[in-house]
Amino acid sequence: MFRTPLLILSLLLAFSHSLLAQKEDSVIIRRIFKEALSDTTAYHNLRYLCTAIGGRLCGSPQAEKAVRWSEKLLGEMGLDTVFLQEVKVRHWVRGNIEKLEVNPGTASGFRLHACAIGGSIGTDEKGLTGNVIEVHDFDELKKLGRKNIEGNIVFFNHTPDPVHYNTFEAYSELVQFRVYGVDYASSYGAKAVVVRSATLAHDDFPHTGIIYYADTVKKIPAMAVSFNDAERLSSFLKSNPNADLLMQMACNEQPETTSYNVIGEIRGTMHPEKVIAFGGHLDSWDIGQGASDDGTGVIQTIEVLRLFKKLGLKPNYSLRVVVFMDEEMAQRGAAKYAKFAKQSDSASGIQHQKHVAAIEADRGGFTPFGFSIDATDLQVKKVQSWKNLLLPYGLYSFEKGGSGVDIGMLKPLGVPLFALVPDSQRYFDYHHSAQDTFDKVNQRELQLGSFAMAALVFLIDKYGL
Amino acid sequence: MFRTPLLILSLLLAFSHSLLAQKEDSVIIRRIFKEALSDTTAYHNLRYLCTAIGGRLCGSPQAEKAVRWSEKLLGEMGLDTVFLQEVKVRHWVRGNIEKLEVNPGTASGFRLHACAIGGSIGTDEKGLTGNVIEVHDFDELKKLGRKNIEGNIVFFNHTPDPVHYNTFEAYSELVQFRVYGVDYASSYGAKAVVVRSATLAHDDFPHTGIIYYADTVKKIPAMAVSFNDAERLSSFLKSNPNADLLMQMACNEQPETTSYNVIGEIRGTMHPEKVIAFGGHLDSWDIGQGASDDGTGVIQTIEVLRLFKKLGLKPNYSLRVVVFMDEEMAQRGAAKYAKFAKQSDSASGIQHQKHVAAIEADRGGFTPFGFSIDATDLQVKKVQSWKNLLLPYGLYSFEKGGSGVDIGMLKPLGVPLFALVPDSQRYFDYHHSAQDTFDKVNQRELQLGSFAMAALVFLIDKYGL
Repeated sequence: MFRTPLLILSLLLAFSHSLLAQKEDSVIIRRIFKEALSDTTAYHNLRYLCTAIGGRLCGSPQAEKAVRWSEKLLGEMGLDTVFLQEVKVRHWVRGNIEKLEVNPGTASGFRLHACAIGGSIGTDEKGLTGNVIEVHDFDELKKLGRKNIEGNIVFFNHTPDPVHYNTFEAYSELVQFRVYGVDYASSYGAKAVVVRSATLAHDDFPHTGIIYYADTVKKIPAMAVSFNDAERLSSFLKSNPNADLLMQMACNEQPETTSYNVIGEIRGTMHPEKVIAFGGHLDSWDIGQGASDDGTGVIQTIEVLRLFKKLGLKPNYSLRVVVFMDEEMAQRGAAKYAKFAKQSDSASGIQHQKHVAAIEADRGGFTPFGFSIDATDLQVKKVQSWKNLLLPYGLYSFEKGGSGVDIGMLKPLGVPLFALVPDSQRYFDYHHSAQDTFDKVNQRELQLGSFAMAALVFLIDKYGL
Repeated sequence: MFRTPLLILSLLLAFSHSLLAQKEDSVIIRRIFKEALSDTTAYHNLRYLCTAIGGRLCGSPQAEKAVRWSEKLLGEMGLDTVFLQEVKVRHWVRGNIEKLEVNPGTASGFRLHACAIGGSIGTDEKGLTGNVIEVHDFDELKKLGRKNIEGNIVFFNHTPDPVHYNTFEAYSELVQFRVYGVDYASSYGAKAVVVRSATLAHDDFPHTGIIYYADTVKKIPAMAVSFNDAERLSSFLKSNPNADLLMQMACNEQPETTSYNVIGEIRGTMHPEKVIAFGGHLDSWDIGQGASDDGTGVIQTIEVLRLFKKLGLKPNYSLRVVVFMDEEMAQRGAAKYAKFAKQSDSASGIQHQKHVAAIEADRGGFTPFGFSIDATDLQVKKVQSWKNLLLPYGLYSFEKGGSGVDIGMLKPLGVPLFALVPDSQRYFDYHHSAQDTFDKVNQRELQLGSFAMAALVFLIDKYGL
């Protein structure tokens, strides 16, 4: 007789507690939303980073400026710790000559919108000329074989597939030709490669990015051509199969230089030795302003700390923003941070740190839809149980998936990893091109991303994983 | 002994049928997605409408051109029926003078970014001058009373609240001052009003829209001022409380003229007498190109018919696109269509038509999130049961809510109404301003909206409501 009412009572208590906790959480999340959407600090910070400092190729004076500016910004936020992590970085320089011309010096000749792919060797001053051989994939190149390729310029013209909801899927198909095309073509004796830009946008802007040369083949230069000019060149080749290309580039590799990850932290009140880390990367390509890739991620993750400070939220765990250096070239900042995460570090006063979670923001500052989660099924389920708190703010997607290049290096440590997932439709219109500028970022979309990051950090901090 | 296995068998059959149906549906929805995202017809149609025809104020030559162009476009699509519905429309003209100046002719004077609010009376050639009285809401105006307002110019400067996820909520707070401010101020003896633009965008573009004058008060002229200039004027008034404003506008009302709704239809194979209607509005404001409001809605709903034709999908019900005229001024196209929907119409060869559903696309051509549904709970539940088919395409929100101004007039007929719900973050940056241009529309976001409309139409057509 007594047991049933007691059971009911305790169930009722548990239920009302959970409802009460939900109510409390939703009030705090609403406060975070209010501050994130009302305050324009993050947007003005992004403007400064993009327009006053500009594109921040790793190793460049702009990257150095951005490091000092980030350090100062974090230093003025009243955080408990701000420090730099030294990283040796490559210093590739684009140079002042970049030219790609069809049938140069003839009446039918025309110049293409093209740029050096990052890390490419340059040409000599006069440039190099060769017959263009168009291929659509690696198989086609293989079939043509050395006899058709040797001494010529290979044009990788893989048509992008627009039939994906998420544009990252189209990108991952395209990008292999930029990354691996140069070595593959070189192994057949090509003297240079031209690659269609990895974008779905029908326009005249070439998109750069990184190539890595294998040690086993001869290095040859590589350029990216715009979407429209890839189509134009392809159509020209149909009636002019023997067309020549002139490629001229002054890009070159300078000696390695010193740069830094920039780190700022609010110390946890309950478990200061445990860390929730979040960040974006400070370096960018040089031909734009590094706005969507990844100024927005840097600014949004710094904003998380500002929101916690401003609202007087005392975290249980230490909250740490990591502004990564060298995501675009060789991820040496990420490697450095991952090494650091394995060790205690007496110089920074941080001992026995353990990562509770790491979150990356590197997919553009567009309207956020949720998070991609690289963790155990149980951890994913736990995050999904918070969905009702986040759905009123358009955050509906909490699925298992990849995280990001920088925090990915923490995976061997068993850290649950998250990526902020914004709307992807416009990202590759701008990505790695001269279009990646501040004016393409919408203030509210940026703020919604900061909010999403801060809300997730708040919930992980409160409930653990 | 026999009944249990039979029951299980029949349950299994029902279950496998439902799985099979789901599988079939997902295949067709995938085909619609593929065609919508691969084909660029809709985007090029929008370019023509926005850049070759331009802003289409109802009653204007551009609106007339747009009617003829839409009729031709539908006529070339191989539809079963294309026809026009005549509508008498207002013909308000902006004129070539539009000026708002603070302290005119003095050293401290400056000009504001401002435009006539649609439907406003003009001033005489010299313009009118008056003291500016800033108020933030109707209560403040009431408190100031006739003694402070009479003979002056009222400046409605209601600060927008950015703390809404959906920007339509901020808009609906702001827009009341544009719509009702003029009569309210006039009732206190004001000689003119200036209204802060109904936008959240910190920029120099004024946003127009409609005002209606009540018969009971004197008509006074009204202008909208940009976000930045509202702040500038407000801050200037703090140190110059007696500042004057000069308002000069040549806008005026011309005699009513004739225009049209444009309608196209694929006849249903099973129930041709029953209709699924969908549409946007062809008219727009004149100071932009009417791209997001509502070129995108017109083009996306026309695209639904192209998709059905191209994919050879034979609908059960008749599918009808309604390109509405005069949404911005007086919704006479909507009224005409609603009247028509009540009657059989022998001239168009359409008898005893009944609307199964109506869907409006008039919230911009941004990444779609789902639909707002004005229907019974049972109908809403039915639509929600299709969610798993649409979620892979980012369509996650199927909630009870309002539909749209044009199809709203079908509500008394008991028609289930739907509005396409896209991301709202950027809409009011452009809405009713010179920023509402083609280049602000992303091709993929437009295509995703066409897809969303077509997928919903396909499911309603297959399963009814």
